[in-house]
Amino acid sequence: MRSVSVIGVGQTKFDEHWELSLRDLIAEASIKAIQDANVGSKDLEAIFGGCMAAGRFIGQEHIGALMADQLGVNPLPAIRCEAACASGGVALRMAYLSIASGAYDVVAVGGVEKMTDVSTEDAAIALAGAGDQEWELFNGATFPSIYALMARRHMHDFGTTEEQMALCAVKNHANGAFNEYAQFRTPFTLEQVMNSGYVAEPLKLLDCSPISDGAASLILCTSEKAKQFTDKQVEIVASTQASDTLSLHDRKTMTGMYGTEVAAKKAYEQAKISPKDVNVLECHDCFTIAQIMALEDLGFCRKGEGGKFVESGGIDKDGEIPTNMSGGLKAVGHPVGASGVREAIDVVRQLRGDAPKETQVADAEIGMSHNVGGSGATVVLHVFKRRF
Amino acid sequence: MRSVSVIGVGQTKFDEHWELSLRDLIAEASIKAIQDANVGSKDLEAIFGGCMAAGRFIGQEHIGALMADQLGVNPLPAIRCEAACASGGVALRMAYLSIASGAYDVVAVGGVEKMTDVSTEDAAIALAGAGDQEWELFNGATFPSIYALMARRHMHDFGTTEEQMALCAVKNHANGAFNEYAQFRTPFTLEQVMNSGYVAEPLKLLDCSPISDGAASLILCTSEKAKQFTDKQVEIVASTQASDTLSLHDRKTMTGMYGTEVAAKKAYEQAKISPKDVNVLECHDCFTIAQIMALEDLGFCRKGEGGKFVESGGIDKDGEIPTNMSGGLKAVGHPVGASGVREAIDVVRQLRGDAPKETQVADAEIGMSHNVGGSGATVVLHVFKRRF
Repeated sequence: MRSVSVIGVGQTKFDEHWELSLRDLIAEASIKAIQDANVGSKDLEAIFGGCMAAGRFIGQEHIGALMADQLGVNPLPAIRCEAACASGGVALRMAYLSIASGAYDVVAVGGVEKMTDVSTEDAAIALAGAGDQEWELFNGATFPSIYALMARRHMHDFGTTEEQMALCAVKNHANGAFNEYAQFRTPFTLEQVMNSGYVAEPLKLLDCSPISDGAASLILCTSEKAKQFTDKQVEIVASTQASDTLSLHDRKTMTGMYGTEVAAKKAYEQAKISPKDVNVLECHDCFTIAQIMALEDLGFCRKGEGGKFVESGGIDKDGEIPTNMSGGLKAVGHPVGASGVREAIDVVRQLRGDAPKETQVADAEIGMSHNVGGSGATVVLHVFKRRF
Repeated sequence: MRSVSVIGVGQTKFDEHWELSLRDLIAEASIKAIQDANVGSKDLEAIFGGCMAAGRFIGQEHIGALMADQLGVNPLPAIRCEAACASGGVALRMAYLSIASGAYDVVAVGGVEKMTDVSTEDAAIALAGAGDQEWELFNGATFPSIYALMARRHMHDFGTTEEQMALCAVKNHANGAFNEYAQFRTPFTLEQVMNSGYVAEPLKLLDCSPISDGAASLILCTSEKAKQFTDKQVEIVASTQASDTLSLHDRKTMTGMYGTEVAAKKAYEQAKISPKDVNVLECHDCFTIAQIMALEDLGFCRKGEGGKFVESGGIDKDGEIPTNMSGGLKAVGHPVGASGVREAIDVVRQLRGDAPKETQVADAEIGMSHNVGGSGATVVLHVFKRRF
């Protein structure tokens, strides 16, 4: 397999973009990435788009072709990948494989979602399509309630507290305040998070990521050819993916994600590293409990100790594994098809030294992005390494 | 890039399956393909699913994970590819690239759609998401009307007749009568097709492919390793894809598909063949005019002469290019996410000599499958070659 590098990144602000369409979001993010990569449209050979539910949100499928059309790059091949909230991550992985295979040298990855054109209720129903329609959605489950079940069990088994979960929100929002692309740039105190109303007990409003519009884009290139375009290439040294049952009830455990464990084991093998070697992590904090479970499942702390790890500063800028320095899904926002690509962008920014100075981790060389679909039925991991 | 072969095929009957769910369809097709390939579930390394609009049709996204779950093969990575009615074709192409890259040796491809759980009106709206929501659907266009525009222009420019289009339906339905998996096994006379009511003038009911439920599955393997599983492997000697504008109005031509031309040129180069070398074709006849345009754009006859070519027996079993010997989308049915995979299956059956004896082309060695998304914004081509 050929080595693959990221040579350009671009994204829109994540927000409620009442004045922009899905097409506008795609154009803005893609053009920024193309400019950042210093490629011409004639260099591009294919487009891999991640999008979860444009059919439900805006009545439009065929999102790959729409991206090629909007960018004016027909007849380039373009496809859409979908794996719920991991759609962006799998698009990145498919793009990576297409270059690794030798089929293409330079490709664009785009993640996008326009979620605010429907009511909040319709958005919740569309999102529930990430879970199990027959076993969960049909019976009234929504995503906050599914993650609330995991949180409650984690509290029961390991003594994790609501305060520890709330602390994830506090830390992520503190980081997000410095991120110009973040939907929410207001820091919150622990008291404010604890006093925000229950959405699905024990999860409160400020334990949950928001509904957002946004797009994010990456330009990938063979590592060999990347030098032609940039002197700041970031190599993808591992790309792994795993699945689990669509619904919660059939799993081995409710206090972690088996898919994350499997993908992580493979990723560390592929990259020939251990968790200790990772300098910066963007993990999928769709709910605060998800961040605590991810830290455990990725091997950054022991099972059940994620809450204490957060409390003791393990995820801080100077901690064992600086996590979600961007603000995470919590503060940056969560346009579901875009988040997997956005996570990768924020890791790349850290490795290039391009993060806001307040959240830039010093001398970060190796970073990881962790993208989850649904309640863990899809997990995609990428490990990135600075090559300059 | 490593060479890739098809080692197993399986499909459900395409039909209105009131008693079966999306999961049931996936299970049936996949298990048949797994058995046909003689692989164990431990041999499988990944799943690539094609599905267009399950969010709209059954309220379920995350179809890749659902496939892995339903087959009980967690934690295997599984993704869904979407490119409207070319979703199955792009899933096949992504699976092909994943093996060509060296990432996997054995993978499953699945295409599926469950379309009859919603009203015909809602199905038409969901399908219109394959076109341009803003320029076409919003203004009232449906797919029959979009293809009717192409048909009318083809008639105007080249003198193509309604009888010539109707003849495609007659021939495809005559072939489909022998196909046990076909939704419609009744032959129709030219008079019957001509007397079926207009859906969108000049296209009549029997010029249109139906709304269908169904699933289709392929098992792919490196050509080198394929010998371990079968002595009837069929190699994929070309896999190409191209895009065009999502909506009709911005195209160079309305009487053909530029995407098909581009993908065909590349496919003949990759396979190192010319159209004359192709022994059997499954082409995307969502409407009869689409079959006429495809014959021209693929180079089997000159531009504008597709109608006459069909009339003169060019697509018959003993003609220049035996086409849609399965019955095509017209007779087999068109569960949109499954058709691209089903087309590939029917080419493989021809090359293995496994087609019904009435429609088996003698000594077929090279075959092509042609899969179109929307009105041509995505085109995927695969060329297959018998390796025994």
